[in-house]
Amino acid sequence: MGFFSQLDEAVKKNNSLLCVGLDPDPALMPPGVSVLDFNKAIIDATAGLVCAYKPNLAFYEAEGAKGWEILKQTVEYIPKEMPVIADAKRGDIGNTARAYAKAIFDELGAGAVTVNPYLGFDAVEPFLNYRDKGVFILCRTSNAGAADFQSLKVASDGEELPLYQVIARKSREWNKFGNIGLVVGATYPDELRLLRRAYPEMPFLIPGVGAQGGDLKLAVSYGKNAGGAGIIINSSRQVLYASRGKDFAQAARAAAFKLRDEINFYRSKI
Amino acid sequence: MGFFSQLDEAVKKNNSLLCVGLDPDPALMPPGVSVLDFNKAIIDATAGLVCAYKPNLAFYEAEGAKGWEILKQTVEYIPKEMPVIADAKRGDIGNTARAYAKAIFDELGAGAVTVNPYLGFDAVEPFLNYRDKGVFILCRTSNAGAADFQSLKVASDGEELPLYQVIARKSREWNKFGNIGLVVGATYPDELRLLRRAYPEMPFLIPGVGAQGGDLKLAVSYGKNAGGAGIIINSSRQVLYASRGKDFAQAARAAAFKLRDEINFYRSKI
Repeated sequence: MGFFSQLDEAVKKNNSLLCVGLDPDPALMPPGVSVLDFNKAIIDATAGLVCAYKPNLAFYEAEGAKGWEILKQTVEYIPKEMPVIADAKRGDIGNTARAYAKAIFDELGAGAVTVNPYLGFDAVEPFLNYRDKGVFILCRTSNAGAADFQSLKVASDGEELPLYQVIARKSREWNKFGNIGLVVGATYPDELRLLRRAYPEMPFLIPGVGAQGGDLKLAVSYGKNAGGAGIIINSSRQVLYASRGKDFAQAARAAAFKLRDEINFYRSKI
Repeated sequence: MGFFSQLDEAVKKNNSLLCVGLDPDPALMPPGVSVLDFNKAIIDATAGLVCAYKPNLAFYEAEGAKGWEILKQTVEYIPKEMPVIADAKRGDIGNTARAYAKAIFDELGAGAVTVNPYLGFDAVEPFLNYRDKGVFILCRTSNAGAADFQSLKVASDGEELPLYQVIARKSREWNKFGNIGLVVGATYPDELRLLRRAYPEMPFLIPGVGAQGGDLKLAVSYGKNAGGAGIIINSSRQVLYASRGKDFAQAARAAAFKLRDEINFYRSKI
Protein backbone atom coordinates (compact mmCIF):
# COMPACT_ATOMS: atom_id res chain seq x y z
CA MET A 1 0.00 0.00 0.00
CA GLY A 2 1.27 3.48 -0.84
CA PHE A 3 2.19 5.93 1.90
CA PHE A 4 -0.75 8.28 1.38
CA SER A 5 -3.27 5.42 1.41
CA GLN A 6 -1.69 4.13 4.60
CA LEU A 7 -1.93 7.66 6.01
CA ASP A 8 -5.62 7.92 5.11
CA GLU A 9 -6.34 4.68 6.92
CA ALA A 10 -4.46 5.76 10.04
CA VAL A 11 -6.28 9.11 10.00
CA LYS A 12 -9.63 7.29 9.89
CA LYS A 13 -8.78 4.55 12.35
CA ASN A 14 -7.48 6.91 15.04
CA ASN A 15 -9.66 9.85 14.00
CA SER A 16 -6.50 11.91 14.13
CA LEU A 17 -4.41 14.34 12.08
CA LEU A 18 -1.73 14.47 14.77
CA CYS A 19 1.81 13.32 14.07
CA VAL A 20 4.28 12.90 16.91
CA GLY A 21 7.84 13.93 16.17
CA LEU A 22 10.21 11.41 17.74
CA ASP A 23 13.09 13.81 18.45
CA PRO A 24 14.78 12.48 21.58
CA ASP A 25 16.88 15.14 23.26
CA PRO A 26 18.75 13.77 26.31
CA ALA A 27 18.74 17.26 27.88
CA LEU A 28 14.93 17.25 27.94
CA MET A 29 14.20 13.56 28.50
CA PRO A 30 13.41 12.04 31.88
CA PRO A 31 16.69 11.14 33.61
CA GLY A 32 17.79 7.50 33.59
CA VAL A 33 15.66 6.46 30.60
CA SER A 34 17.45 5.27 27.45
CA VAL A 35 16.49 6.82 24.10
CA LEU A 36 15.08 3.54 22.80
CA ASP A 37 13.05 2.91 25.96
CA PHE A 38 11.85 6.50 25.84
CA ASN A 39 10.73 6.15 22.22
CA LYS A 40 9.02 2.82 22.89
CA ALA A 41 7.12 4.26 25.85
CA ILE A 42 6.03 7.28 23.79
CA ILE A 43 4.90 5.02 20.93
CA ASP A 44 3.02 2.69 23.28
CA ALA A 45 1.30 5.67 24.89
CA THR A 46 0.27 7.43 21.67
CA ALA A 47 -0.15 4.80 18.92
CA GLY A 48 -3.93 4.95 19.18
CA LEU A 49 -4.03 8.74 18.98
CA VAL A 50 -1.88 9.70 16.01
CA CYS A 51 -1.84 9.37 12.22
CA ALA A 52 1.95 9.16 11.85
CA TYR A 53 5.32 9.34 13.56
CA LYS A 54 8.12 11.61 12.39
CA PRO A 55 11.61 10.87 13.71
CA ASN A 56 14.07 13.66 12.88
CA LEU A 57 17.37 12.07 11.89
CA ALA A 58 19.51 14.80 13.48
CA PHE A 59 18.70 13.66 17.00
CA TYR A 60 19.91 10.15 16.21
CA GLU A 61 22.95 11.15 14.16
CA ALA A 62 24.09 13.22 17.13
CA GLU A 63 24.90 9.84 18.73
CA GLY A 64 26.65 8.44 15.64
CA ALA A 65 26.35 4.76 14.67
CA LYS A 66 24.65 3.93 17.97
CA GLY A 67 22.05 6.58 17.19
CA TRP A 68 21.33 5.10 13.76
CA GLU A 69 20.85 1.71 15.36
CA ILE A 70 18.37 3.20 17.84
CA LEU A 71 16.59 4.98 15.00
CA LYS A 72 16.22 1.73 13.11
CA GLN A 73 14.97 -0.10 16.20
CA THR A 74 12.50 2.73 16.79
CA VAL A 75 11.12 2.51 13.25
CA GLU A 76 10.84 -1.27 13.62
CA TYR A 77 8.96 -0.84 16.89
CA ILE A 78 6.31 1.43 15.37
CA PRO A 79 3.19 -0.63 14.53
CA LYS A 80 3.30 -1.71 10.86
CA GLU A 81 0.07 0.02 9.93
CA MET A 82 1.38 3.35 11.20
CA PRO A 83 3.02 5.75 8.69
CA VAL A 84 6.59 6.82 9.43
CA ILE A 85 8.02 10.06 8.00
CA ALA A 86 11.81 10.30 8.14
CA ASP A 87 12.46 13.99 8.72
CA ALA A 88 15.80 14.13 6.94
CA LYS A 89 15.56 17.28 4.78
CA ARG A 90 18.04 15.75 2.35
CA GLY A 91 19.01 17.29 -0.97
CA ASP A 92 21.97 16.28 -3.12
CA ILE A 93 22.92 15.59 -6.73
CA GLY A 94 21.37 12.59 -8.51
CA ASN A 95 23.70 9.72 -7.69
CA THR A 96 24.00 10.91 -4.09
CA ALA A 97 20.26 11.43 -3.72
CA ARG A 98 19.84 7.82 -4.82
CA ALA A 99 22.08 6.76 -1.93
CA TYR A 100 19.99 8.85 0.50
CA ALA A 101 16.76 7.34 -0.86
CA LYS A 102 18.25 3.88 -0.34
CA ALA A 103 19.26 4.85 3.23
CA ILE A 104 15.83 6.13 4.17
CA PHE A 105 13.46 3.84 2.29
CA ASP A 106 15.37 0.56 1.93
CA GLU A 107 17.71 0.56 4.90
CA LEU A 108 15.63 2.41 7.48
CA GLY A 109 12.24 1.36 6.13
CA ALA A 110 10.50 4.73 6.45
CA GLY A 111 7.33 5.34 4.44
CA ALA A 112 8.03 8.99 3.64
CA VAL A 113 10.81 11.55 3.76
CA THR A 114 11.26 15.31 3.88
CA VAL A 115 13.51 16.75 1.14
CA ASN A 116 15.10 20.13 0.46
CA PRO A 117 14.37 21.53 -3.02
CA TYR A 118 17.31 23.95 -3.38
CA LEU A 119 19.19 21.63 -5.75
CA GLY A 120 16.22 21.23 -8.08
CA PHE A 121 14.48 18.32 -9.72
CA ASP A 122 17.29 15.80 -10.02
CA ALA A 123 17.83 16.00 -6.24
CA VAL A 124 14.19 15.12 -5.62
CA GLU A 125 13.55 12.62 -8.41
CA PRO A 126 15.34 9.60 -6.87
CA PHE A 127 12.94 9.83 -3.91
CA LEU A 128 9.89 10.25 -6.16
CA ASN A 129 10.83 7.13 -8.08
CA TYR A 130 9.84 5.13 -5.02
CA ARG A 131 6.21 5.52 -6.04
CA ASP A 132 4.79 3.94 -2.90
CA LYS A 133 6.71 6.35 -0.68
CA GLY A 134 5.73 9.89 0.32
CA VAL A 135 8.00 12.85 -0.43
CA PHE A 136 7.40 16.07 1.50
CA ILE A 137 9.18 18.99 -0.13
CA LEU A 138 10.25 21.88 2.11
CA CYS A 139 8.17 24.84 0.97
CA ARG A 140 7.67 27.34 3.80
CA THR A 141 9.57 26.19 6.85
CA SER A 142 8.51 27.01 10.40
CA ASN A 143 11.67 28.81 11.59
CA ALA A 144 12.40 32.54 11.83
CA GLY A 145 15.08 32.34 9.13
CA ALA A 146 12.53 31.02 6.62
CA ALA A 147 12.01 34.57 5.42
CA ASP A 148 15.68 35.04 4.47
CA PHE A 149 15.21 33.34 1.10
CA GLN A 150 11.77 31.73 0.96
CA SER A 151 9.99 35.11 0.95
CA LEU A 152 12.12 36.71 -1.74
CA LYS A 153 10.15 37.81 -4.78
CA VAL A 154 11.03 35.79 -7.83
CA ALA A 155 10.20 36.36 -11.48
CA SER A 156 8.41 33.21 -12.62
CA ASP A 157 6.42 32.77 -15.85
CA GLY A 158 5.79 36.50 -16.13
CA GLU A 159 4.65 36.83 -12.52
CA GLU A 160 6.35 37.87 -9.32
CA LEU A 161 5.98 35.25 -6.66
CA PRO A 162 7.72 34.54 -3.38
CA LEU A 163 10.22 31.72 -3.76
CA TYR A 164 8.22 29.32 -1.59
CA GLN A 165 5.28 29.66 -3.97
CA VAL A 166 7.49 28.93 -6.95
CA ILE A 167 8.63 25.80 -5.15
CA ALA A 168 5.02 24.78 -4.52
CA ARG A 169 4.22 25.29 -8.20
CA LYS A 170 7.21 23.22 -9.30
CA SER A 171 6.31 20.53 -6.80
CA ARG A 172 2.90 20.18 -8.46
CA GLU A 173 4.58 19.91 -11.87
CA TRP A 174 6.86 17.17 -10.53
CA ASN A 175 4.00 15.22 -8.95
CA LYS A 176 3.38 12.74 -11.73
CA PHE A 177 3.20 9.76 -9.34
CA GLY A 178 0.96 11.57 -6.84
CA ASN A 179 3.38 11.04 -3.98
CA ILE A 180 4.38 14.63 -3.17
CA GLY A 181 3.37 16.71 -0.18
CA LEU A 182 4.58 20.11 1.05
CA VAL A 183 6.09 21.16 4.37
CA VAL A 184 4.40 24.37 5.51
CA GLY A 185 5.06 25.77 8.98
CA ALA A 186 2.19 26.58 11.34
CA THR A 187 4.17 29.69 12.29
CA TYR A 188 3.23 31.31 8.95
CA PRO A 189 -0.58 31.04 8.84
CA ASP A 190 -1.03 33.59 6.03
CA GLU A 191 1.33 31.67 3.77
CA LEU A 192 -0.40 28.44 4.76
CA ARG A 193 -3.77 29.88 3.74
CA LEU A 194 -2.44 31.10 0.40
CA LEU A 195 -0.90 27.71 -0.32
CA ARG A 196 -4.09 25.82 0.55
CA ARG A 197 -6.12 28.05 -1.76
CA ALA A 198 -3.65 27.54 -4.60
CA TYR A 199 -3.15 23.80 -4.00
CA PRO A 200 -6.46 22.42 -2.75
CA GLU A 201 -5.43 18.80 -3.28
CA MET A 202 -1.84 18.79 -1.96
CA PRO A 203 -1.09 17.10 1.40
CA PHE A 204 0.62 19.45 3.87
CA LEU A 205 2.95 18.39 6.64
CA ILE A 206 2.65 21.18 9.22
CA PRO A 207 5.30 21.55 11.91
CA GLY A 208 5.61 24.49 14.30
CA VAL A 209 2.73 24.25 16.76
CA GLY A 210 3.66 24.08 20.43
CA ALA A 211 7.28 24.89 21.32
CA GLN A 212 7.74 26.86 18.10
CA GLY A 213 4.69 29.01 18.79
CA GLY A 214 2.43 28.25 15.82
CA ASP A 215 -1.29 28.79 16.45
CA LEU A 216 -3.11 25.45 16.29
CA LYS A 217 -6.48 26.93 15.38
CA LEU A 218 -5.07 28.81 12.41
CA ALA A 219 -2.92 25.87 11.33
CA VAL A 220 -5.96 23.63 11.11
CA SER A 221 -8.48 26.19 9.81
CA TYR A 222 -6.17 27.51 7.10
CA GLY A 223 -4.44 24.23 6.30
CA LYS A 224 -7.28 21.74 6.02
CA ASN A 225 -8.66 20.83 2.62
CA ALA A 226 -12.33 20.85 1.55
CA GLY A 227 -12.82 17.48 3.26
CA GLY A 228 -11.46 18.74 6.60
CA ALA A 229 -8.25 16.74 6.15
CA GLY A 230 -5.13 16.83 3.94
CA ILE A 231 -2.92 17.99 6.81
CA ILE A 232 -0.54 16.30 9.18
CA ILE A 233 -0.04 18.44 12.26
CA ASN A 234 3.26 17.61 13.86
CA SER A 235 4.08 18.10 17.50
CA SER A 236 7.37 17.04 19.01
CA ARG A 237 8.41 18.75 22.24
CA GLN A 238 4.88 19.50 23.45
CA VAL A 239 4.11 15.78 23.54
CA LEU A 240 7.50 14.20 24.26
CA TYR A 241 8.40 16.45 27.15
CA ALA A 242 5.00 17.01 28.72
CA SER A 243 6.65 15.70 31.90
CA ARG A 244 10.22 14.88 32.88
CA GLY A 245 9.04 12.67 35.73
CA LYS A 246 8.28 8.95 35.85
CA ASP A 247 4.85 9.75 34.46
CA PHE A 248 6.35 11.02 31.18
CA ALA A 249 4.51 8.47 29.03
CA GLN A 250 1.11 9.15 30.61
CA ALA A 251 1.77 12.87 30.33
CA ALA A 252 2.67 12.43 26.64
CA ARG A 253 -0.52 10.47 26.13
CA ALA A 254 -2.58 13.17 27.79
CA ALA A 255 -0.88 15.87 25.68
CA ALA A 256 -1.45 13.89 22.47
CA PHE A 257 -5.08 13.25 23.43
CA LYS A 258 -5.67 16.93 24.02
CA LEU A 259 -3.95 17.96 20.79
CA ARG A 260 -5.84 15.39 18.72
CA ASP A 261 -9.14 16.60 20.09
CA GLU A 262 -8.30 20.26 19.60
CA ILE A 263 -7.32 19.54 16.00
CA ASN A 264 -10.58 17.66 15.46
CA PHE A 265 -12.52 20.53 16.99
CA TYR A 266 -11.07 22.98 14.46
CA ARG A 267 -11.40 20.47 11.60
CA SER A 268 -15.15 20.44 12.02
CA LYS A 269 -15.48 24.26 12.12
CA ILE A 270 -15.86 26.29 8.97
CA MET B 1 43.95 25.32 14.76
CA GLY B 2 40.98 26.48 12.70
CA PHE B 3 39.87 24.57 9.62
CA PHE B 4 40.98 27.16 7.07
CA SER B 5 44.46 27.45 8.65
CA GLN B 6 44.74 23.68 8.58
CA LEU B 7 43.66 23.75 4.95
CA ASP B 8 46.30 26.36 4.07
CA GLU B 9 48.99 24.21 5.63
CA ALA B 10 47.87 21.09 3.76
CA VAL B 11 47.74 23.08 0.50
CA LYS B 12 51.33 24.21 1.04
CA LYS B 13 52.72 20.92 2.31
CA ASN B 14 51.31 18.84 -0.55
CA ASN B 15 51.36 21.67 -3.10
CA SER B 16 47.80 20.69 -3.89
CA LEU B 17 44.31 22.11 -4.24
CA LEU B 18 42.84 18.67 -4.87
CA CYS B 19 40.27 17.16 -2.52
CA VAL B 20 39.30 13.51 -2.86
CA GLY B 21 35.64 12.71 -2.26
CA LEU B 22 35.38 9.49 -0.26
CA ASP B 23 32.08 8.27 -1.72
CA PRO B 24 32.28 4.49 -1.67
CA ASP B 25 29.76 2.92 -4.05
CA PRO B 26 29.80 -0.89 -3.87
CA ALA B 27 28.61 -1.06 -7.50
CA LEU B 28 31.77 0.73 -8.66
CA MET B 29 34.32 -0.54 -6.13
CA PRO B 30 36.73 -3.41 -6.81
CA PRO B 31 34.97 -6.68 -5.95
CA GLY B 32 35.82 -8.33 -2.64
CA VAL B 33 37.17 -5.19 -0.94
CA SER B 34 35.34 -3.87 2.12
CA VAL B 35 34.37 -0.18 2.23
CA LEU B 36 36.72 0.52 5.12
CA ASP B 37 39.65 -1.26 3.46
CA PHE B 38 38.86 0.56 0.23
CA ASN B 39 38.87 3.94 1.96
CA LYS B 40 42.08 3.16 3.84
CA ALA B 41 43.84 2.13 0.65
CA ILE B 42 42.65 5.30 -1.14
CA ILE B 43 43.81 7.45 1.78
CA ASP B 44 47.20 5.71 1.96
CA ALA B 45 47.65 6.18 -1.78
CA THR B 46 46.67 9.85 -1.94
CA ALA B 47 47.45 11.47 1.43
CA GLY B 48 50.58 13.14 0.06
CA LEU B 49 48.75 14.53 -2.96
CA VAL B 50 45.63 16.23 -1.64
CA CYS B 51 44.63 19.18 0.53
CA ALA B 52 41.49 17.59 2.00
CA TYR B 53 39.15 14.61 2.02
CA LYS B 54 35.41 14.92 1.58
CA PRO B 55 33.28 11.93 2.58
CA ASN B 56 29.65 12.30 1.45
CA LEU B 57 27.41 11.00 4.22
CA ALA B 58 24.83 9.52 1.84
CA PHE B 59 27.11 6.68 0.79
CA TYR B 60 27.56 5.63 4.41
CA GLU B 61 23.96 6.15 5.52
CA ALA B 62 22.91 3.82 2.70
CA GLU B 63 24.35 1.07 4.92
CA GLY B 64 22.67 2.30 8.11
CA ALA B 65 24.41 2.08 11.50
CA LYS B 66 27.21 -0.05 10.05
CA GLY B 67 27.83 2.67 7.48
CA TRP B 68 28.09 5.37 10.17
CA GLU B 69 30.62 3.21 12.01
CA ILE B 70 32.68 2.87 8.81
CA LEU B 71 32.41 6.62 8.22
CA LYS B 72 33.74 7.30 11.71
CA GLN B 73 36.58 4.81 11.31
CA THR B 74 37.41 6.42 7.95
CA VAL B 75 37.58 9.90 9.47
CA GLU B 76 39.75 8.54 12.29
CA TYR B 77 42.08 6.93 9.77
CA ILE B 78 42.70 10.17 7.87
CA PRO B 79 46.01 11.70 9.05
CA LYS B 80 45.34 14.30 11.77
CA GLU B 81 46.88 17.17 9.85
CA MET B 82 44.59 16.56 6.89
CA PRO B 83 41.31 18.58 6.65
CA VAL B 84 38.07 16.58 6.49
CA ILE B 85 34.92 18.08 4.98
CA ALA B 86 31.72 16.19 5.85
CA ASP B 87 29.58 16.57 2.74
CA ALA B 88 26.23 16.46 4.50
CA LYS B 89 24.26 19.33 2.93
CA ARG B 90 22.24 19.64 6.12
CA GLY B 91 19.71 22.36 6.81
CA ASP B 92 17.11 22.36 9.58
CA ILE B 93 15.57 24.64 12.21
CA GLY B 94 17.76 25.89 15.06
CA ASN B 95 17.49 23.19 17.71
CA THR B 96 17.73 20.48 15.04
CA ALA B 97 20.67 22.15 13.31
CA ARG B 98 22.43 22.10 16.68
CA ALA B 99 21.98 18.34 16.79
CA TYR B 100 23.40 18.02 13.25
CA ALA B 101 26.38 20.20 14.18
CA LYS B 102 26.97 17.96 17.19
CA ALA B 103 26.76 14.87 14.95
CA ILE B 104 29.25 16.18 12.41
CA PHE B 105 31.73 18.13 14.50
CA ASP B 106 31.65 16.46 17.92
CA GLU B 107 30.60 12.91 17.17
CA LEU B 108 32.20 12.39 13.74
CA GLY B 109 35.07 14.80 14.27
CA ALA B 110 34.97 16.45 10.83
CA GLY B 111 36.69 19.82 10.39
CA ALA B 112 34.11 21.28 8.00
CA VAL B 113 30.62 20.65 6.68
CA THR B 114 28.47 21.52 3.69
CA VAL B 115 25.10 23.13 4.54
CA ASN B 116 21.96 23.97 2.60
CA PRO B 117 20.84 27.61 2.95
CA TYR B 118 17.14 27.24 2.03
CA LEU B 119 16.00 27.54 5.67
CA GLY B 120 17.94 30.76 6.24
CA PHE B 121 20.30 32.02 8.92
CA ASP B 122 19.11 30.12 11.96
CA ALA B 123 19.69 26.83 10.10
CA VAL B 124 23.31 27.80 9.42
CA GLU B 125 24.21 29.61 12.65
CA PRO B 126 24.64 26.52 14.89
CA PHE B 127 27.40 25.33 12.52
CA LEU B 128 29.03 28.78 12.37
CA ASN B 129 29.19 28.91 16.15
CA TYR B 130 31.88 26.26 15.98
CA ARG B 131 34.38 28.98 15.08
CA ASP B 132 37.24 26.60 14.38
CA LYS B 133 35.17 24.62 11.89
CA GLY B 134 34.57 25.40 8.23
CA VAL B 135 31.05 25.84 6.86
CA PHE B 136 30.56 25.57 3.09
CA ILE B 137 27.19 26.96 2.05
CA LEU B 138 25.60 25.53 -1.10
CA CYS B 139 25.53 28.40 -3.57
CA ARG B 140 25.58 27.13 -7.16
CA THR B 141 25.50 23.35 -7.15
CA SER B 142 27.04 21.22 -9.90
CA ASN B 143 23.93 19.31 -11.00
CA ALA B 144 21.60 19.93 -13.94
CA GLY B 145 18.67 20.77 -11.64
CA ALA B 146 20.67 23.63 -10.09
CA ALA B 147 19.01 25.98 -12.58
CA ASP B 148 15.47 25.13 -11.37
CA PHE B 149 15.66 27.58 -8.46
CA GLN B 150 19.24 28.85 -8.11
CA SER B 151 19.07 30.78 -11.40
CA LEU B 152 15.74 32.45 -10.73
CA LYS B 153 15.92 36.22 -10.73
CA VAL B 154 15.26 37.66 -7.31
CA ALA B 155 14.57 41.23 -6.25
CA SER B 156 17.21 42.04 -3.64
CA ASP B 157 18.10 45.50 -2.26
CA GLY B 158 16.73 47.21 -5.36
CA GLU B 159 18.58 44.92 -7.76
CA GLU B 160 17.64 41.80 -9.68
CA LEU B 161 20.02 38.97 -8.96
CA PRO B 162 19.91 35.23 -9.48
CA LEU B 163 19.11 33.44 -6.23
CA TYR B 164 22.56 31.87 -5.95
CA GLN B 165 24.10 35.35 -5.93
CA VAL B 166 21.74 36.49 -3.21
CA ILE B 167 22.86 33.48 -1.20
CA ALA B 168 26.50 34.39 -1.76
CA ARG B 169 25.82 37.93 -0.60
CA LYS B 170 24.02 36.73 2.53
CA SER B 171 26.82 34.29 3.22
CA ARG B 172 29.29 37.16 3.31
CA GLU B 173 27.01 39.06 5.71
CA TRP B 174 26.87 36.01 7.96
CA ASN B 175 30.63 35.48 7.93
CA LYS B 176 31.51 37.27 11.15
CA PHE B 177 33.79 34.47 12.34
CA GLY B 178 35.54 34.08 8.96
CA ASN B 179 34.66 30.41 8.70
CA ILE B 180 32.33 30.39 5.68
CA GLY B 181 33.07 29.10 2.19
CA LEU B 182 30.79 28.58 -0.82
CA VAL B 183 30.04 25.48 -2.87
CA VAL B 184 30.23 26.38 -6.56
CA GLY B 185 30.06 23.67 -9.22
CA ALA B 186 32.72 23.39 -11.90
CA THR B 187 29.89 22.64 -14.32
CA TYR B 188 28.87 26.33 -14.26
CA PRO B 189 32.09 28.18 -15.13
CA ASP B 190 30.40 31.50 -15.96
CA GLU B 191 28.71 31.59 -12.58
CA LEU B 192 31.99 30.60 -10.94
CA ARG B 193 33.75 33.51 -12.63
CA LEU B 194 31.07 35.99 -11.58
CA LEU B 195 31.23 34.76 -8.00
CA ARG B 196 35.02 34.99 -7.82
CA ARG B 197 34.92 38.56 -9.11
CA ALA B 198 32.28 39.52 -6.57
CA TYR B 199 33.85 37.61 -3.66
CA PRO B 200 37.62 37.75 -4.14
CA GLU B 201 38.36 36.55 -0.62
CA MET B 202 35.81 33.74 -0.18
CA PRO B 203 37.03 30.10 -0.24
CA PHE B 204 35.22 28.00 -2.86
CA LEU B 205 34.66 24.27 -2.67
CA ILE B 206 34.33 23.19 -6.31
CA PRO B 207 32.78 19.82 -7.14
CA GLY B 208 31.82 18.67 -10.62
CA VAL B 209 35.05 17.97 -12.50
CA GLY B 210 35.48 14.47 -13.91
CA ALA B 211 32.38 12.25 -13.93
CA GLN B 212 30.07 15.29 -13.81
CA GLY B 213 31.75 16.89 -16.82
CA GLY B 214 33.08 20.17 -15.41
CA ASP B 215 36.07 21.61 -17.27
CA LEU B 216 39.13 21.58 -15.00
CA LYS B 217 40.91 24.41 -16.76
CA LEU B 218 37.95 26.75 -16.42
CA ALA B 219 37.28 25.67 -12.85
CA VAL B 220 40.80 26.60 -11.82
CA SER B 221 41.23 29.69 -14.01
CA TYR B 222 37.89 31.19 -13.06
CA GLY B 223 37.82 29.97 -9.48
CA LYS B 224 41.27 30.80 -8.15
CA ASN B 225 41.81 33.96 -6.14
CA ALA B 226 44.49 36.61 -6.73
CA GLY B 227 47.03 34.40 -4.97
CA GLY B 228 46.30 31.41 -7.23
CA ALA B 229 44.51 29.59 -4.43
CA GLY B 230 41.23 29.90 -2.47
CA ILE B 231 39.73 26.86 -4.18
CA ILE B 232 39.29 23.23 -3.25
CA ILE B 233 38.79 21.15 -6.38
CA ASN B 234 36.95 17.97 -5.51
CA SER B 235 37.13 14.77 -7.46
CA SER B 236 35.40 11.61 -6.34
CA ARG B 237 34.69 9.02 -9.03
CA GLN B 238 37.60 9.97 -11.31
CA VAL B 239 40.05 9.10 -8.54
CA LEU B 240 38.24 6.37 -6.58
CA TYR B 241 37.29 4.29 -9.57
CA ALA B 242 40.30 4.83 -11.82
CA SER B 243 40.52 1.03 -11.82
CA ARG B 244 38.30 -1.76 -10.57
CA GLY B 245 41.20 -4.21 -10.51
CA LYS B 246 43.65 -5.10 -7.77
CA ASP B 247 45.66 -2.05 -8.77
CA PHE B 248 42.83 0.29 -7.75
CA ALA B 249 44.92 2.14 -5.16
CA GLN B 250 47.87 2.70 -7.50
CA ALA B 251 45.44 3.79 -10.21
CA ALA B 252 43.78 6.21 -7.75
CA ARG B 253 47.22 7.57 -6.83
CA ALA B 254 48.10 8.06 -10.49
CA ALA B 255 44.78 9.80 -11.16
CA ALA B 256 45.22 12.07 -8.12
CA PHE B 257 48.80 12.85 -9.14
CA LYS B 258 47.70 13.83 -12.63
CA LEU B 259 44.80 15.95 -11.36
CA ARG B 260 46.95 17.73 -8.81
CA ASP B 261 49.52 18.60 -11.45
CA GLU B 262 46.92 19.75 -13.96
CA ILE B 263 45.37 21.99 -11.30
CA ASN B 264 48.80 23.41 -10.46
CA PHE B 265 49.48 24.02 -14.14
CA TYR B 266 46.31 26.14 -14.45
CA ARG B 267 46.96 27.84 -11.09
CA SER B 268 50.17 29.31 -12.40
CA LYS B 269 48.65 30.59 -15.64
CA ILE B 270 47.06 34.00 -15.89
